[in-house]
Amino acid sequence: MTQTLSIDSSERLQLSPLMVPSRLLLGPGPSNAHPAVLQAMNTPPVGHLDPAFLKLMDEIQSLLRYVWQTKNQLTIAVSGTGSAAMEAAIANVTEPGDVVLVGVAGYFGNRLVDMASRYGADVRTIKKPWGQVFSLDELRTALETYRPTILALVHAETSTGARQPLEGVGDLCREFGCLLLIDTVTSLGGVPLYLDAWGVDIAYSCSQKGLGCPPGASPLTLGPRAIEKLHQRQTKVANWYLDMMLLSKYWGEERTYHHTAPINLYYALREALRLLAQEGIENSWQRHQKNAEYLWEKLEDFGLTLHVEKQFRLPTLTTVRIPEGVDGKAVARQLLNEYDVEIGGGLGELAGQVWRIGLMGFNSRKESVDQLLQVLPQVLHKP
Amino acid sequence: MTQTLSIDSSERLQLSPLMVPSRLLLGPGPSNAHPAVLQAMNTPPVGHLDPAFLKLMDEIQSLLRYVWQTKNQLTIAVSGTGSAAMEAAIANVTEPGDVVLVGVAGYFGNRLVDMASRYGADVRTIKKPWGQVFSLDELRTALETYRPTILALVHAETSTGARQPLEGVGDLCREFGCLLLIDTVTSLGGVPLYLDAWGVDIAYSCSQKGLGCPPGASPLTLGPRAIEKLHQRQTKVANWYLDMMLLSKYWGEERTYHHTAPINLYYALREALRLLAQEGIENSWQRHQKNAEYLWEKLEDFGLTLHVEKQFRLPTLTTVRIPEGVDGKAVARQLLNEYDVEIGGGLGELAGQVWRIGLMGFNSRKESVDQLLQVLPQVLHKP
Repeated sequence: MTQTLSIDSSERLQLSPLMVPSRLLLGPGPSNAHPAVLQAMNTPPVGHLDPAFLKLMDEIQSLLRYVWQTKNQLTIAVSGTGSAAMEAAIANVTEPGDVVLVGVAGYFGNRLVDMASRYGADVRTIKKPWGQVFSLDELRTALETYRPTILALVHAETSTGARQPLEGVGDLCREFGCLLLIDTVTSLGGVPLYLDAWGVDIAYSCSQKGLGCPPGASPLTLGPRAIEKLHQRQTKVANWYLDMMLLSKYWGEERTYHHTAPINLYYALREALRLLAQEGIENSWQRHQKNAEYLWEKLEDFGLTLHVEKQFRLPTLTTVRIPEGVDGKAVARQLLNEYDVEIGGGLGELAGQVWRIGLMGFNSRKESVDQLLQVLPQVLHKP
Repeated sequence: MTQTLSIDSSERLQLSPLMVPSRLLLGPGPSNAHPAVLQAMNTPPVGHLDPAFLKLMDEIQSLLRYVWQTKNQLTIAVSGTGSAAMEAAIANVTEPGDVVLVGVAGYFGNRLVDMASRYGADVRTIKKPWGQVFSLDELRTALETYRPTILALVHAETSTGARQPLEGVGDLCREFGCLLLIDTVTSLGGVPLYLDAWGVDIAYSCSQKGLGCPPGASPLTLGPRAIEKLHQRQTKVANWYLDMMLLSKYWGEERTYHHTAPINLYYALREALRLLAQEGIENSWQRHQKNAEYLWEKLEDFGLTLHVEKQFRLPTLTTVRIPEGVDGKAVARQLLNEYDVEIGGGLGELAGQVWRIGLMGFNSRKESVDQLLQVLPQVLHKP
């Protein structure tokens, strides 16, 4: 033991136990976790190779397959938040020089561009105004033009509230011999998703939105065509933590130690998925749709304008145009500080133009909408 | 909403709420979390840009500086487990072609080699038998030979239980104009560490060992020389999720959205660090040392041999040689299944040769040792 050095205590804060306000989280995520999920998370941790934990990992895999409607064997939860799962998706199937075509109609499309370029991809983009979606014809033309290895689309664009229809896109990708990679961060659990029927090869999500779990353990799935690409790599995956060649040996039969999983978040995720299976995934989709429509109707009654055309609106996240002359940030701040209700502001191109209101997972309830509607007149100074 | 597809319910498990056994975790980690830490983690999440959360991030930064004994401004917790912080350390300061010299005397030295090579480093190694450490002379010779950009050493080798002395290494690195990168995964909180006095430029750790917190939010710190290297990069950090150029804008004054942090794990980490500051870091080091010495004495009384020479033994993790003719795995399994006590087996070169017994964070208590010693005779079939 080093005895000669003295301790610098200048950063030794003397704090009280944690006190954070209790918020209703109606922003773009995180949403409030289900109380039973928090309860499960509170269970003392076991080891990451404990048989009890390995069994729980299997259960998570099954339930993720169910909520995603896929038979993909390689369906796991990544030990990080949604962005880590996004990076895992890109890192594993991208090799330097691969042409990756990204549909950009919002902030998260741009993030895919940034990430793919960091892995050496030759990134091409097709663009739409934020809040719109791509048609099958537009996608076909782009595939003809760029002949990519991977087509990356955002199913639920968290920055715009738009839902990209995916019917037929998988067939197109097969026709052009490319993989289909899908961002389902704001759709899993709350928006209809049929990965296998739609021919999706790679998808990722998060825990803290439609699944009603705290953030930190994030779903990722690779189908057979993606696994084939993984096995044909000429180079190691340029990311050790997210390397599916290594991770699949921990989640698979070998149970080879890779890293220490965030045990308690897996407890929480297992409980969130258990509750979702109990409810039934189609019932959860319908619940999200119903509560979103109730919100839309009330907001429009209130004289507000919704940013996305109704048929492409996400039931999980609604973008509302900020009326002329209203300080959007001030309204959101007042909602948070005076009423403990969080809503989101616009991101990127939509900064200052929209609010983002999420009704996700446990928060997709009529009560959430009513609570918001009760305080909205006060902050908008309307009668 | 897609109505035409039917739901496949084959993976829809109908599960009971979570039931996992209550274990005493005396392996190489995770250790049991302090009950107050679990309690804090259970607080309902707020948003990742909520002023209450931003304040908590500042508190975590201060307290991490205190436990690491550093003034590094760029001291944060990465949104992943220890291996993610390890990868963050490597990814940010390594550029393709950099000569990275790694001291390999165990499993985690080898992991540094693997990671650095994935980021394009020209990796060189110096080696020692597992359980031994490098002398200053050996390090000087290696620096003279390889002239690296970065010297990477494992302060606390979790696979061997050896503590690499660091006094003087920082001066050597300055003499040779290279950065000093240190793995403190199994030392932070439990083993004396003076990052600034020792001239460490980059260090990382985890939450679930000496800090007594569940895994998932992992300390990382970069000193001024490392930040200079970061700013002089010719290429983007080849990892979006762990890019400190982006992360520093979320943890710094800008508060620019990067990714959704694992909110509840930050609650837990803040509480774990708060308790550590309350105890005093030097008291925690002394507690770990005292309990380890008690364990060592009792194990030797019991006729067992310790793998590491006493002066280099980690107080957090002890490697015990498995006696001739004893099935080490069977013993560990019996301890777990019959007595709910987890100890670890050997890893890599030491597989089958040692057990690893951790006394870390909340588990570094005389009671933990006594509980183990009480059941050890049964599983070793000794009177």
